[in-house]
Amino acid sequence: MKYDVIVIGSGPGGYVAAIRASQLGKKTAVVEKAEVGGICLNWGCIPTKALLKSAQVYTYINHAENYGIKVEGEVKPDMEAVVARSRGVADTMSKGVQYLLKKNNVDVIAGYGKLTVDKQVEVTDAEGNASLYEADHIILATGSRVRELPALPIDGKKIIGYRQALVLDKIPESMVVVGSGAIGSEFAFFFTSMGVKVTLVEFLPNVVPNEDEEVSKQVERAFKKLKMTVMTEASVTHVDTTGEKCVCTIANKKGEKTVEADIVLSAVGVQTNIDNLGLEELGITTDRGKVNVDEWYRTNVPGIYAIGDIVHGPALAHKADHEATICVEKLCGLDPKPLNYANIPGCTYTTPEIASVGLSEAKAIAAGYEVKIGKFPFTASGKATAAGNRDGFIKVVFDAKTGDWLGCHMVGDNVTEMVAAAVLCRELGAKGEDIIHAVFPHPTMSEGIMEAAAAAYGECVHL
Amino acid sequence: MKYDVIVIGSGPGGYVAAIRASQLGKKTAVVEKAEVGGICLNWGCIPTKALLKSAQVYTYINHAENYGIKVEGEVKPDMEAVVARSRGVADTMSKGVQYLLKKNNVDVIAGYGKLTVDKQVEVTDAEGNASLYEADHIILATGSRVRELPALPIDGKKIIGYRQALVLDKIPESMVVVGSGAIGSEFAFFFTSMGVKVTLVEFLPNVVPNEDEEVSKQVERAFKKLKMTVMTEASVTHVDTTGEKCVCTIANKKGEKTVEADIVLSAVGVQTNIDNLGLEELGITTDRGKVNVDEWYRTNVPGIYAIGDIVHGPALAHKADHEATICVEKLCGLDPKPLNYANIPGCTYTTPEIASVGLSEAKAIAAGYEVKIGKFPFTASGKATAAGNRDGFIKVVFDAKTGDWLGCHMVGDNVTEMVAAAVLCRELGAKGEDIIHAVFPHPTMSEGIMEAAAAAYGECVHL
Repeated sequence: MKYDVIVIGSGPGGYVAAIRASQLGKKTAVVEKAEVGGICLNWGCIPTKALLKSAQVYTYINHAENYGIKVEGEVKPDMEAVVARSRGVADTMSKGVQYLLKKNNVDVIAGYGKLTVDKQVEVTDAEGNASLYEADHIILATGSRVRELPALPIDGKKIIGYRQALVLDKIPESMVVVGSGAIGSEFAFFFTSMGVKVTLVEFLPNVVPNEDEEVSKQVERAFKKLKMTVMTEASVTHVDTTGEKCVCTIANKKGEKTVEADIVLSAVGVQTNIDNLGLEELGITTDRGKVNVDEWYRTNVPGIYAIGDIVHGPALAHKADHEATICVEKLCGLDPKPLNYANIPGCTYTTPEIASVGLSEAKAIAAGYEVKIGKFPFTASGKATAAGNRDGFIKVVFDAKTGDWLGCHMVGDNVTEMVAAAVLCRELGAKGEDIIHAVFPHPTMSEGIMEAAAAAYGECVHL
Repeated sequence: MKYDVIVIGSGPGGYVAAIRASQLGKKTAVVEKAEVGGICLNWGCIPTKALLKSAQVYTYINHAENYGIKVEGEVKPDMEAVVARSRGVADTMSKGVQYLLKKNNVDVIAGYGKLTVDKQVEVTDAEGNASLYEADHIILATGSRVRELPALPIDGKKIIGYRQALVLDKIPESMVVVGSGAIGSEFAFFFTSMGVKVTLVEFLPNVVPNEDEEVSKQVERAFKKLKMTVMTEASVTHVDTTGEKCVCTIANKKGEKTVEADIVLSAVGVQTNIDNLGLEELGITTDRGKVNVDEWYRTNVPGIYAIGDIVHGPALAHKADHEATICVEKLCGLDPKPLNYANIPGCTYTTPEIASVGLSEAKAIAAGYEVKIGKFPFTASGKATAAGNRDGFIKVVFDAKTGDWLGCHMVGDNVTEMVAAAVLCRELGAKGEDIIHAVFPHPTMSEGIMEAAAAAYGECVHL
């Protein structure tokens, strides 16, 4: 079978690439070895948000009295129902992508896809039967999987990764979560909310270590308020799984201690799926686990492209999605703009939520900028006060010389829905004064963006 | 006593004007006859959001099973506690403004302020004692109050306005809400959520009649799903309050019917507080209840300014706030930009929330634009699906010729936090392609802005 475009992998990079290619008139197929929609839809972004919503509702109920609502009798999460709901949400979204692919006349080829030496795609199905497909353009979008550390061999029962964490059949008593990036922090928060005694272990000095340090500190305070144990500058050096409980040896500067837990969740990052793809045979170059591509996602072998987690940049769905569009539009002869990697936001859906884009204060200073900093705490926000959650703040970092908006860092309720405003402003080259002059609706927490900008320029009324 | 600036009224226009003037070196006082912070903080935006948060929590509890949380036993709202919480929130914010005024060295003069014929400010305190104050600049920021219709004379018991609605001591069985603007719709939604049998009566063909018609239709569907009775193109012509219940005569095209209710809430808009201010005596001109001002908020009498609800434009806190800043910065000799009245967003905090800015589709067409419309329903949003509320959509209106973003209309969870992105983009002159190219974080509902813009330009992948 001959296609114009074959995409290997149907995650948020792959399915977008396939649909866009088909929309632009290309005969297109997408190869998928597991669920359509990839990790994001099935084992990542989406099902975790469903779990976190259950945690939010449970938390509201536990604090109902603060809102004037009386709850008599017992309240408890039914883990089976919580997980079933999460799986249902993932299934709905996966079906949605299947529908979109069908509607856009994209063929879905089930099986494991790899490149052959003569630039065809060989797909091996579940029964082990291999078929060959030809295409003018082959886009690799194979994504990533959980990264395993030697000290934390995932057995799926006692030492687990995000996949198993999404489908636990009952709520454990205790858990050690290793790694406090977005995945680790979200699970640590979720299980703590569900009543699990969680110990969060982070190798670096701060939790959510990619965030601005003030954000990290706020999140750490919030976690500790929930009675989570947070250990930073620490690492799990060994887990003894022979007994009933896991016995974790955790080392930090002061020495070693042991923590017992029912389950250890390893969330130390992801590794790219570039093995057994036929890269070496074709001579496609890679660098530290990432496929080398140019700004149009072309590898060094003509006709072969790579996007998403397997190329440089953060492993994020929205980054893959845009790379997909740019890659396809370019190979179709359109004139897309290259992706601005400095303007990709990141979100973590704990409570408080975390959202940021651009440089942290420390990174801006390290990069040589003279900075203007503004910060607006949600304690001063009417909307946050009315909502009963005044935790968090918005912090903005401007270039003192040019007024350029270097970074925006938010922590608090719903900030993940607010960071798009900062992305757009930065895309459009907004200066501090543009933000101060815009009329933000009252009462919202988004007003904090304006207040923070005004604070940076000494014009804030509300602080 | 002589000041540089005296502001009459300490609402979101007045207190901002006073603080900004003081920040810019002016000796400033603000005159307030009631609570510092005005209606917005004490009897409007803020306490309503507190009530609505209680309603949201109550709704979550009633639907806890959908999220996998088991609630045994009785759940009921304690109206006294709900109201006490709301008053506490208002009090916190009012104290916050008192703190800001003090911190910024603004004198607060308690009493009723009015202009004298020789351009002084006469303040009459609660005991009836009058004092005179001089100022080089007097800013009128007296706001508005509930509008009364002859057929709905507010007695504060059976026929009430928003003030009484905020402090009901018990949950009535039934209520007729007259007027479905932001205030009427928020109360109708709140009381329906609390278990009250609500009839919402709107004179115009659609509820929330200032919104895009598709938004209105979505909100009407949502209200009806909650078992609210919605009557459009109808008006309450008479209320008989002599019996135990109010007997409302409601007329529409088909004739008249009567609806019984414990309470009638009149929410037919506001009227400006410009009586007994000394305007006529000083020859300050007004037009249909609004004080005439130029773009710097100068009345026709030198040294007298007016801002907020009492001047042209929508009666919104964020509009007053910006007018205050512009007015004060100009009179202090700075060079502010005039306010762009076409770019003031509006929000309604029902569930689903409503947020919009700019022209509706119908208004854009009526204004002679050739339009490009894009719409993204939240049924296609992974975040909305994970959150368990897929109601609503984002609709964008572009000028087909120039690509200018004429309007953005949103209805759904948390859209009030998302509309700032549209305001900023419009302020910065963004075109459709700028929005499509920006990297919105996934999974969020704000992605719907990008998807809607892409849909307008035929580039949407997710529909």
